[in-house]
Amino acid sequence: MTHKIIFDTDPGIDDAMALLFIEASPDLDLLAITTIYGNADIETTTRNALYLKQRFGLTAPIYKGTEKPLTRPRNPSPTFVHGENGLGDVELTGLVPAQPEAKPAHQAIIDIARQYPGEVTLVAVGPLTNLALALQADPEVTRLLKAVVIMGGAFGLAGKPGNVTPVAEANIWNDPEAADQVFTAPWPLTAVSLDVTTQVVMSPTYMDALEASAGPAGQFLNAISKPYAAFYGERDGVVGCCVHDAAAAAYVIDPSLFSVRRGSVRVVTEGIALGQTCQKAEGELFGPSAWDDLPIQAVTVAVDEAGLLKLYAETMRA
Amino acid sequence: MTHKIIFDTDPGIDDAMALLFIEASPDLDLLAITTIYGNADIETTTRNALYLKQRFGLTAPIYKGTEKPLTRPRNPSPTFVHGENGLGDVELTGLVPAQPEAKPAHQAIIDIARQYPGEVTLVAVGPLTNLALALQADPEVTRLLKAVVIMGGAFGLAGKPGNVTPVAEANIWNDPEAADQVFTAPWPLTAVSLDVTTQVVMSPTYMDALEASAGPAGQFLNAISKPYAAFYGERDGVVGCCVHDAAAAAYVIDPSLFSVRRGSVRVVTEGIALGQTCQKAEGELFGPSAWDDLPIQAVTVAVDEAGLLKLYAETMRA
Repeated sequence: MTHKIIFDTDPGIDDAMALLFIEASPDLDLLAITTIYGNADIETTTRNALYLKQRFGLTAPIYKGTEKPLTRPRNPSPTFVHGENGLGDVELTGLVPAQPEAKPAHQAIIDIARQYPGEVTLVAVGPLTNLALALQADPEVTRLLKAVVIMGGAFGLAGKPGNVTPVAEANIWNDPEAADQVFTAPWPLTAVSLDVTTQVVMSPTYMDALEASAGPAGQFLNAISKPYAAFYGERDGVVGCCVHDAAAAAYVIDPSLFSVRRGSVRVVTEGIALGQTCQKAEGELFGPSAWDDLPIQAVTVAVDEAGLLKLYAETMRA
Repeated sequence: MTHKIIFDTDPGIDDAMALLFIEASPDLDLLAITTIYGNADIETTTRNALYLKQRFGLTAPIYKGTEKPLTRPRNPSPTFVHGENGLGDVELTGLVPAQPEAKPAHQAIIDIARQYPGEVTLVAVGPLTNLALALQADPEVTRLLKAVVIMGGAFGLAGKPGNVTPVAEANIWNDPEAADQVFTAPWPLTAVSLDVTTQVVMSPTYMDALEASAGPAGQFLNAISKPYAAFYGERDGVVGCCVHDAAAAAYVIDPSLFSVRRGSVRVVTEGIALGQTCQKAEGELFGPSAWDDLPIQAVTVAVDEAGLLKLYAETMRA
């Protein structure tokens, strides 16, 4: 079965890894790319999306998203992770000047959802501002989309910390108010969270094999992944690249690679835990709380690392 | 080696289980009992401490603590857990009218720490207000005490939730400001947290055996534990009593029953995550954060359940 998807992304190194994986997958039909600030500013992430489209011959239209969070100033770009150019500072040669579509990202999400009611899965791997804007502009989008799958959050389910503070993951922390709206909206949402994505690591050997087997895409991904791997190695002692964003795409293709826990989710919007995602698991009983009477969403608690790495490599095989 | 301890407590069913365990242990020398509101109001918890002292012939003096959190109104007492009388509504017969010592709890903590500098471990199993008041009245108490061991917090280290909200444990939630002061003070502190205490369960069979082997204390504990076990059984499907407070005492006797993670700890003092304890593990690198340049404290991540239950039963054997 082929899944129609919209990919909301802030390329970003692992975004590029996810985008080329989506394009290569026979199970995914990429209807549109919507961009968002996050790993770099919106001009840079949109330029990177246009570059990837040209270089790898993608056909999906690109819609530019918003440049800032709903209510806060934008956090500084993590150039120490994704480089100044958002793609590991690998030289982006031969870009023919190009523009995204005129329509803003959140309106494109709404219109595509209306065009294929009940058929489209929205895969979002950056800050969730475009999704919140779509919710605000047209609340019916919650029943028009088939599903929402995000890469984001850190739920403390395996003793794993966040990646920007001990409790917060960057995508959520970048716009906590938007994330809280997205998690509490009545669409079927799955968060592929840092709890599992940090357990899926592409080693240098894996990346070399990808370069050998996956043609130009493999060569490009191996090149851009090196500074990313160096960052994680230096900070966390991880040898290789954590597969954050591609894991969300893999969830759409094969959810059996993951186990999930169901329950309502809230996002902390103030104080030292800003940007933390907290789930009240279904069936847990407390007194009245901020988690009551909210939609039940799924959060990943475990992942089949080998299975996911195999799916990625086999999909990318040229 | 015998450990001199002060026991700061809000009896409370599992507080009573801990207190009689401390009294029975040849490894612990109970210098004083200080009371705190929490499982019931301060009048009730102090009355219960006096009752336990009389009924079981304890010699330690009892100092009454503060009746409310540092800055907030007191939360309602959890009568649905500990009963109206704080001890499972088991009838407390034969109490001779008695009063606690005149000195307030926090001053007793300071004075006893000064009397035996470097020798006293403060074991605190209720809200941490007395400890914060002691810190405020005499900051040197941090180097005068040998160690602080608390039962409190929920660190999300094993996918376990809090017990009053999805992220907060009751002792910390009852006075988050006090807890934040206590965790960030420069004394060597270990939090025996809900992450592990919910993994140590005294089954009805265990309690019956305790009644048979531990004399009047065993009979009393089996009686008061029944409503407590019924509450946990109904809410969480646990068959038996979670050993929260006695686990903190057990940590003093035999820390090898636990493994800990070290790092700075902050407490959330606002918003939906109010009362959550968050640790930045030592060696984790983030940008500048609220966890920087703070004392490194220990948090339990695992427990030898069988070993702890054995230690308790053998200590209580009459």
